[in-house]
Amino acid sequence: MIKIGVDAMGGDFAPKEQILGAMMAIKKIDDIEINLYGDQDIISKYLTDSTRINVIDAKYVIPMGEKNPIQAIKTHKDSSMAMALSSLRNDENDAVVSSGATQALIAGAHILVRRMKGFKRTAIAPILPRVNGGSTILLDAGANLSIKPEYMLQQAYFAKIYAQKMFKIDNPKVGLINIGTEDGKGREFDQEVFHLFKETDLFEFFGNVEPKEVLDPPCDILISDGFTANIVMKSVEGAVKGMSKMLKKHLTSNIFGKLGALLARKSLKNLKTDLSAEEIGGAVIFGLYKPVIKAQGASKSYGFYNGIRQAANVVREGVFKTVEDYLETQKDLGDE
Amino acid sequence: MIKIGVDAMGGDFAPKEQILGAMMAIKKIDDIEINLYGDQDIISKYLTDSTRINVIDAKYVIPMGEKNPIQAIKTHKDSSMAMALSSLRNDENDAVVSSGATQALIAGAHILVRRMKGFKRTAIAPILPRVNGGSTILLDAGANLSIKPEYMLQQAYFAKIYAQKMFKIDNPKVGLINIGTEDGKGREFDQEVFHLFKETDLFEFFGNVEPKEVLDPPCDILISDGFTANIVMKSVEGAVKGMSKMLKKHLTSNIFGKLGALLARKSLKNLKTDLSAEEIGGAVIFGLYKPVIKAQGASKSYGFYNGIRQAANVVREGVFKTVEDYLETQKDLGDE
Repeated sequence: MIKIGVDAMGGDFAPKEQILGAMMAIKKIDDIEINLYGDQDIISKYLTDSTRINVIDAKYVIPMGEKNPIQAIKTHKDSSMAMALSSLRNDENDAVVSSGATQALIAGAHILVRRMKGFKRTAIAPILPRVNGGSTILLDAGANLSIKPEYMLQQAYFAKIYAQKMFKIDNPKVGLINIGTEDGKGREFDQEVFHLFKETDLFEFFGNVEPKEVLDPPCDILISDGFTANIVMKSVEGAVKGMSKMLKKHLTSNIFGKLGALLARKSLKNLKTDLSAEEIGGAVIFGLYKPVIKAQGASKSYGFYNGIRQAANVVREGVFKTVEDYLETQKDLGDE
Repeated sequence: MIKIGVDAMGGDFAPKEQILGAMMAIKKIDDIEINLYGDQDIISKYLTDSTRINVIDAKYVIPMGEKNPIQAIKTHKDSSMAMALSSLRNDENDAVVSSGATQALIAGAHILVRRMKGFKRTAIAPILPRVNGGSTILLDAGANLSIKPEYMLQQAYFAKIYAQKMFKIDNPKVGLINIGTEDGKGREFDQEVFHLFKETDLFEFFGNVEPKEVLDPPCDILISDGFTANIVMKSVEGAVKGMSKMLKKHLTSNIFGKLGALLARKSLKNLKTDLSAEEIGGAVIFGLYKPVIKAQGASKSYGFYNGIRQAANVVREGVFKTVEDYLETQKDLGDE
């Protein structure tokens, strides 16, 4: 059995949607059991079926709007999030899923779960949709705002293993996010990364990729430092949100638009599904001792279920284990 | 009369669309005359009305796909682009519009037009659409990949004057592009800029703005270094392009989608117009001796006309002159 720790209390619609998502996951996935962390009294109101679900009482909740999330996770070891994360270090769970406050989760993951042995810098890796279906791994979406180019080799290698195991891509291509495609483009940092990547045997390097290809890139993995990739992720989010609002505004501005939208509602719904983080799953933190999945704060039950499914897949496919085994063979790189 | 220099030969559809755009501008704007730079023989085929249009023969064209655009502009002083740019330094024109190769244009502007006296670092400023209409100025979209925080004060001030004069916004707000909204977010660089901006009287500083608000920001100007703002611009472009393709794919996948799209065609056209660079105009290079407008490479006549209109407005409103006058009063900042 794969054991998934679930922070039942984090998220805009917690704990209801988290608990519904957990029960859905149990129904659909045979080889998992779930440890739910949160207020037992509140959880019992929503948990109508406790098959393979165990509740661990955690009285404190780190609020979504917490002003000082890093301080909060340090102080509140009794929070649902901290208790779920600590369970990984104690090997009580194989993976954790939370849609709680992002900064608190990242900080908590570093403090309570810690890094995989020999992995230099963790990376947050959200999954982007592609125009013709499929997924692109984006990293680092915010764990390390600045990083040594050589540490990115490990991160890109981790992404390669993830793409191979999770998306069944034999030879995933890694693209370096840059402002131009030619060799020599970008900051000194980008040029250094480019040359390191060009020489490596760890993965196939495609070269520089401009974010104007972000939803249809010529590669499977898009990588940059934690500041830049976060800016890309948020710019895409902003453009999609903005364009959706514009589309809605124009469709509702006249009767033909309204009728057209009504007729095309299945198409519009499919577009929404294509772009939905609920469908795609959560962001994984690469390089931790064990997997932590950050589901969207606004996750409903289906989105949260998908986060749990993703966590179970990561464990089942041995993504983290494969990287760990590789690092074992690279002992000279394994100490800091 | 405002004199606009037009690079007739640069652009995916040059010279035809550029010449049509120039004639359109002459018809619609009374107080301009145009100097067209390009091959006289080719131009004469398309120039059906030479009212207030003067042709200056330039035999060389810098190709759109030029592998080494910076070298090309340095070598080919006889190119339409180089001749148009040089005309600014000689005061033969008040502004230049080109849809030629971007890198060549930026390099050429620096070599042949040079900076406004006392302006430390130029910035490329494209205009982004807003969800509810209006425009946001984004800078620096690529002139300086890294920059001293204090030089960004001048750039943001320039953007403020541009917003005041061109968009008639009394007190434009400046937002710093960042990965979070709180004070202290981002790289060391961003934190330095934040504190400088917080103290300044040159413009109203809104604070940090995340790019997930990029099409609906709580400010009129979005600023970062030339690498980051370029990444934002290209990510937005990529997301809009990708989402448009997805929308098209879903609308054409079934008969109801097709019928709906037919009914809603005006709404969909309005969405396209909202997002179109043709409508919004070109990117201005802030801080040059005189204005250079980079129109989209794929500009058709209407888009190119809009670039000329924008150039005429910048001159008529005295945008560059106002900043120049301010710099005159700041002589202590005026030398490098």
